[in-house]
Amino acid sequence: MKRRDFIAGAAGVAVGAAATYAATSRTSPSIDSGTAEAPSQAPAINSGAQEWRMVTTWPKNFPGLGTGAQRIADRITQMSDGRLTVKLFAAGELVPAFEAFDAVRDGTAEMAHAAAVYWVAKHKSAPFFSTVPSGMTHQEHTGWIHHGGGQALWDELYGGFGLKPFMAGATGVQMGGWFQREIKSVDDFKGLKMRIPGFGAEVVNRLGGTAVNLPGGEIMPALQSGVIDATEWVGPYNDLAFGFHKIAKFYYGPGFHEPNGGIEAFVNKEKFDALSADLQLIVEAACMAETGYMLAEFSAGHNESQAVLVEQHGVQISRFPEDVVKAAYDAGLAVASETANEGELAKRIYDSWSAFRQQAISRAPFAEGGFMEDRALASS
Amino acid sequence: MKRRDFIAGAAGVAVGAAATYAATSRTSPSIDSGTAEAPSQAPAINSGAQEWRMVTTWPKNFPGLGTGAQRIADRITQMSDGRLTVKLFAAGELVPAFEAFDAVRDGTAEMAHAAAVYWVAKHKSAPFFSTVPSGMTHQEHTGWIHHGGGQALWDELYGGFGLKPFMAGATGVQMGGWFQREIKSVDDFKGLKMRIPGFGAEVVNRLGGTAVNLPGGEIMPALQSGVIDATEWVGPYNDLAFGFHKIAKFYYGPGFHEPNGGIEAFVNKEKFDALSADLQLIVEAACMAETGYMLAEFSAGHNESQAVLVEQHGVQISRFPEDVVKAAYDAGLAVASETANEGELAKRIYDSWSAFRQQAISRAPFAEGGFMEDRALASS
Repeated sequence: MKRRDFIAGAAGVAVGAAATYAATSRTSPSIDSGTAEAPSQAPAINSGAQEWRMVTTWPKNFPGLGTGAQRIADRITQMSDGRLTVKLFAAGELVPAFEAFDAVRDGTAEMAHAAAVYWVAKHKSAPFFSTVPSGMTHQEHTGWIHHGGGQALWDELYGGFGLKPFMAGATGVQMGGWFQREIKSVDDFKGLKMRIPGFGAEVVNRLGGTAVNLPGGEIMPALQSGVIDATEWVGPYNDLAFGFHKIAKFYYGPGFHEPNGGIEAFVNKEKFDALSADLQLIVEAACMAETGYMLAEFSAGHNESQAVLVEQHGVQISRFPEDVVKAAYDAGLAVASETANEGELAKRIYDSWSAFRQQAISRAPFAEGGFMEDRALASS
Repeated sequence: MKRRDFIAGAAGVAVGAAATYAATSRTSPSIDSGTAEAPSQAPAINSGAQEWRMVTTWPKNFPGLGTGAQRIADRITQMSDGRLTVKLFAAGELVPAFEAFDAVRDGTAEMAHAAAVYWVAKHKSAPFFSTVPSGMTHQEHTGWIHHGGGQALWDELYGGFGLKPFMAGATGVQMGGWFQREIKSVDDFKGLKMRIPGFGAEVVNRLGGTAVNLPGGEIMPALQSGVIDATEWVGPYNDLAFGFHKIAKFYYGPGFHEPNGGIEAFVNKEKFDALSADLQLIVEAACMAETGYMLAEFSAGHNESQAVLVEQHGVQISRFPEDVVKAAYDAGLAVASETANEGELAKRIYDSWSAFRQQAISRAPFAEGGFMEDRALASS
């Protein structure tokens, strides 16, 4: 199931993982945190030992995302030698996916693993701390967060809700999606019914299409019956498992709508501030470590699954035509820039992000972008 | 000072940092680990407390590299609440830079922060765990290490020397360098005297040039007097501080020789295996956390310094001509592939790396590479 499906509040079934509401109490023995060192039922021997609940917006063990959340919980528990035990709750186990933000605010849980794109109803600028159309790659985004003023702005925004945020994963650039008809020019977006949520939906609408949001379980029948003409998801790693290649013939990438796919963790700020310095650093380092590890999992998974799609299933992958690229990037940047009108903090966030993005665009031809271009030339 | 200068064993002076041999004993109070919680002179209160020495191949607090090593030492010390205190030694303080590998093998130090490209004399395949010409970006490399079999091969190679390795930083794609004359075609490499070390030197030689290796302090006078016609270093972040723009007119990038710039930490394996599980994970997570953090520092620093070079110093940055790209990448890949003849493990390392690289090349147009291309098109 794609993480963005939870925007619709749906608990669809996909990739073998169900996000049904389990109504599990926080002390239920059926919730296994995956860690061996600090049984949740045992009384704490060390009087300072604490147990935290981490809610997530993913099904349990969902590849990359749910497994990443579990790795963070396990690392905190194990690095602290059980002084801070983190128990993981999949979407719906303690609270529904989209109540994770409020659950950590009100103390129902101490921590969450999610994506900032989900909290646009809390603050229009939240997606800048995950990914926005026409934006930046993970490497560029990380430069902005750690060394370009991004973390301070994120702290300020989430701090207003009593939360402390951290980067805690990434999917990398997402694919443009699966289409029933070939996209020859931007005109082919006119009247196109495409399943795409969030800021990307607004881009498709501005291109003349009709964006619809469907939960995971409804996409395949909608595509088969013609209710929709196209859908995007994540990338080969997840798309192959979903089976879109069995229905839609044209696979386009990269997408214009989610160039990073930044994943976050956030902690109740009072609870975080009350931790000892060593435990604060353990929480932070567990998130930082997972950031690169998850992106590596997606990168390797995408590589391998793309090869399977192409070599075993005969899928042809295409780039969007140039006029589509120009129109979609323009519309995406317009959607991003309009958030600056939402208030003083929103303007500072957009201005900081935009200035960093502009430098990154100037730099890319002489850095990773240019290298991959040169390597492709030499390999052709 | 560029890290690769240490290959020449030289202690040059650059960027305000001197790597002179300080003959400092391991208990000298003049070595400040930068951590407040575990004074090195104080007796350990916890009977299990340990102190480790981390040697590095960098000058103390050298931007990005020395500061990154310090952050790793501090995080381990602070996350363990002083149960494992790590004291940092800059190059030359405990052992010279290029004795770091043997110093950790023989127990003179427990840990090191370095780059695998330095240990080619120990094993010809070592550079694959940092960067090789025509290779992979950091994101791709990380996919191979964490999820493509790379870490197991690295463990096997270093394990043969009694060491346990971790990724622990990255510089990103490095620049091609500063040239006194314009490079119009591959013919302009004929007779070119260029300061470039390692596998990249072999590439320049195969293009008809003469690669020379000079320590940092000797590059500027050599460039001014015409002893060399060109030099590469790292990228704008470090090159601006060095002042090459005052001498050489033509700045080319990206380079073909170091597309990742992977930085490592390694630990004496016996010492690592003897740690408790929580401390093992703390050491590992400190290295993983620094990997992304350092790359973010270089990314942001390169962006900002490129803008200064172009806008304030009028530097024109160019891409290498296409025939140079083709010839250099072919030569680079040949240099990399020839390592496979060095033995059974060398062949397995090359084969694994090469297969992953091939998938990454197929994937790049639909992932980060394609995204940056599309974004450039839309921004033009």
